[in-house]
Amino acid sequence: MNACLITIGDEILIGQVVNTNASYLSQKLFSAGIKAERIVSVGDDEKNILDELKNAEKNFDIVLVTGGLGPTHDDITKQCIVKFFKTILVFDKNVYRSVESRFSSRQIKIPPKNIFQAFIPKIAKPLFNAHGTAPGLLICRNKTAFCFMPGVPYEMKYITEKHLLPFLRKNFKTKNVLLQKTLHTFGIPESLLAEKLGNINNIIGRKKYGSVKLAFLPSSAGVRMRVNVDATNKKNGVNLLNEAVNKINFKAGKFIYSSDEEELTKVVGSLLKKKNKTIAVAESCTGGLISSMITDVPGSSDYFSEGVVAYSNDAKKKLLGVKENTLKKFGAVSEQTAEQMADGVRRVSKSDIGVSTTGIAGPTGATKSKPVGLVWIGYSDNKVTLAKKFIFTKDRLRNKELAAKWALEIVRKRLLAIE
Amino acid sequence: MNACLITIGDEILIGQVVNTNASYLSQKLFSAGIKAERIVSVGDDEKNILDELKNAEKNFDIVLVTGGLGPTHDDITKQCIVKFFKTILVFDKNVYRSVESRFSSRQIKIPPKNIFQAFIPKIAKPLFNAHGTAPGLLICRNKTAFCFMPGVPYEMKYITEKHLLPFLRKNFKTKNVLLQKTLHTFGIPESLLAEKLGNINNIIGRKKYGSVKLAFLPSSAGVRMRVNVDATNKKNGVNLLNEAVNKINFKAGKFIYSSDEEELTKVVGSLLKKKNKTIAVAESCTGGLISSMITDVPGSSDYFSEGVVAYSNDAKKKLLGVKENTLKKFGAVSEQTAEQMADGVRRVSKSDIGVSTTGIAGPTGATKSKPVGLVWIGYSDNKVTLAKKFIFTKDRLRNKELAAKWALEIVRKRLLAIE
Repeated sequence: MNACLITIGDEILIGQVVNTNASYLSQKLFSAGIKAERIVSVGDDEKNILDELKNAEKNFDIVLVTGGLGPTHDDITKQCIVKFFKTILVFDKNVYRSVESRFSSRQIKIPPKNIFQAFIPKIAKPLFNAHGTAPGLLICRNKTAFCFMPGVPYEMKYITEKHLLPFLRKNFKTKNVLLQKTLHTFGIPESLLAEKLGNINNIIGRKKYGSVKLAFLPSSAGVRMRVNVDATNKKNGVNLLNEAVNKINFKAGKFIYSSDEEELTKVVGSLLKKKNKTIAVAESCTGGLISSMITDVPGSSDYFSEGVVAYSNDAKKKLLGVKENTLKKFGAVSEQTAEQMADGVRRVSKSDIGVSTTGIAGPTGATKSKPVGLVWIGYSDNKVTLAKKFIFTKDRLRNKELAAKWALEIVRKRLLAIE
Repeated sequence: MNACLITIGDEILIGQVVNTNASYLSQKLFSAGIKAERIVSVGDDEKNILDELKNAEKNFDIVLVTGGLGPTHDDITKQCIVKFFKTILVFDKNVYRSVESRFSSRQIKIPPKNIFQAFIPKIAKPLFNAHGTAPGLLICRNKTAFCFMPGVPYEMKYITEKHLLPFLRKNFKTKNVLLQKTLHTFGIPESLLAEKLGNINNIIGRKKYGSVKLAFLPSSAGVRMRVNVDATNKKNGVNLLNEAVNKINFKAGKFIYSSDEEELTKVVGSLLKKKNKTIAVAESCTGGLISSMITDVPGSSDYFSEGVVAYSNDAKKKLLGVKENTLKKFGAVSEQTAEQMADGVRRVSKSDIGVSTTGIAGPTGATKSKPVGLVWIGYSDNKVTLAKKFIFTKDRLRNKELAAKWALEIVRKRLLAIE
């Protein structure tokens, strides 16, 4: 069982819109046990569209097409259908009624351009669209099922949920069960992670009851490891998935902060709640980002009461009690200042934990001994106050993001007593 | 001149990531006068990758490929290059040095898997990657230029800006001149904006020396208006573009905060600098986001010295001098509290301007009279202290973002004495 997506529209090809239709549809297909093997975008151009349809019919069981079904001059998908399937357009009473009622409910007479929406390819089964004037069009020829949908996301989603997925589930029963789990890591490069896992053949490969795949997805938020299982039945699938995940956890568990789609901030928030601890933040180079990330999580007021953005030396002294002498002797970007900031914000806010950042985010502010990317992250609780040194990148926003995430990761490890 | 994008990665085909690389690259190509005619995504599968390369070479002048260049087992693009171009991998000293230095600067020995990154196809010119271990690979064969890049967005973007675009500009001169300008608005819905512009045919259409197109792109950051010009030469293009932009500015100028790609924060920062003013921020419902946005701009320490995230009532009293009585009588989410927060942070920080936010970000915390989405934004300078009421959405993150942007927009308008 394989599928192909064709998304039509000039706006995609000039980068004016991000193709979220494609990711939505491939997710939905995947959840129905069908993998999209190819996603292709072409413009509102007859030759290109016909070429893709031809190519798709030859190679795929399921072909989903979005875009170009609107009522204006640049929508040419319907005329391409007529040519490709050698069919004609016929008037469909039901479609006409639904289009007309869209306008009459707003007390508008149906515009001539929209009457054309009721003419559909004779070969097609129209799929009712509750959110727009273009119906979906389902066409089966030989062994391939084509489904044409409008490109407007909420119209396309309605037709997918309401008509397409039920159709696929009924007619394209997959033999195999597809399962997936993503393990989120932070603070370890892809290559080191791979080394930690060692001989990967113990984890992946084709087993008796299905196959297991492991993929590494690096991003600025860390490296995600995605485990995919394709198994003969659900029980075998779950077993294979658990086996693989356990093996990975055994070898690299301490770098994994989440085994579902939870953000690092949410994981840290849940830990703070569970352990009944509160946290306060003193930020210099991250400039408020850590506080903002913490407060992205609903209910964060349970464990977060205040944060301070102490950008200037004055603010560091006044708001956090950093000593004049420390700033003079070691500078604002130093182990000592980071420690005093973390300790200071913890005391001032009467929180259990204080974290701090001070660094050279760049592009300016560097000295010979303190390059752009140098960041000290401070941590303080009632037992220990410490600071860790990092050298990140030359990019200001990356440095902010990395420092913020490392600060959270340090808190996570401390809360779990890792290392 | 036509181009094709091939984005490689299973994560795209199962809908785990949205293909933002494709939209970024097609935008960049477009700005260089080149239109992507086809975007195709395939998985980490040798046969599919080779098929697409073959197809692309036959039909396109420029082929951009992203993904599959990492150091782990699922990265197979390099082995596909070797097969497709019938070449071999050779050790590249410069690439090795740059990979090694990435690790040595962090005092880590180069992992064996990463040494492999220094082996590149003999036929390729490596393109230095400042943000990762995989260099870009430029290969020209017959009349087609191929550029292979890593799929990690900031690595791909670096290589595109630094190497790919200069190469394309030099080697693929286009006949017609394509120009584009984006006008950024905030605080006005798409439909009202369209109404303000009135008869759009005065602005767009095919003119004697080229054509002008106008597109509305609504997003959470406001509505952008993109003007595209396709002209016979540069002078005509510039004239057409200026004419259209002037007409738009005349009708909707006060909503436009930027006519290039500048962020609202940068615009506000430049205004503060120009007017020699400083700003401080007191945040409740935005939780640090405004401070973080302000400090995203390099050089922001010139006008920003401190911010306070006062999440709890205690913090509002202690750090900002909000009166106990005000909190009791009007509540934390009120005009009075917002004003005292803005005034308080301005005084405490000795800044010229203070801004504040207090609201119900959601999903919890609402009362009958104070729904989720209710936000008061406070503003204070040495002449006036005021607060404005907003009712945003039911979504926590959208509410944070909208409140932060409105706070900045209020500062912008005050600095320019608009309204």
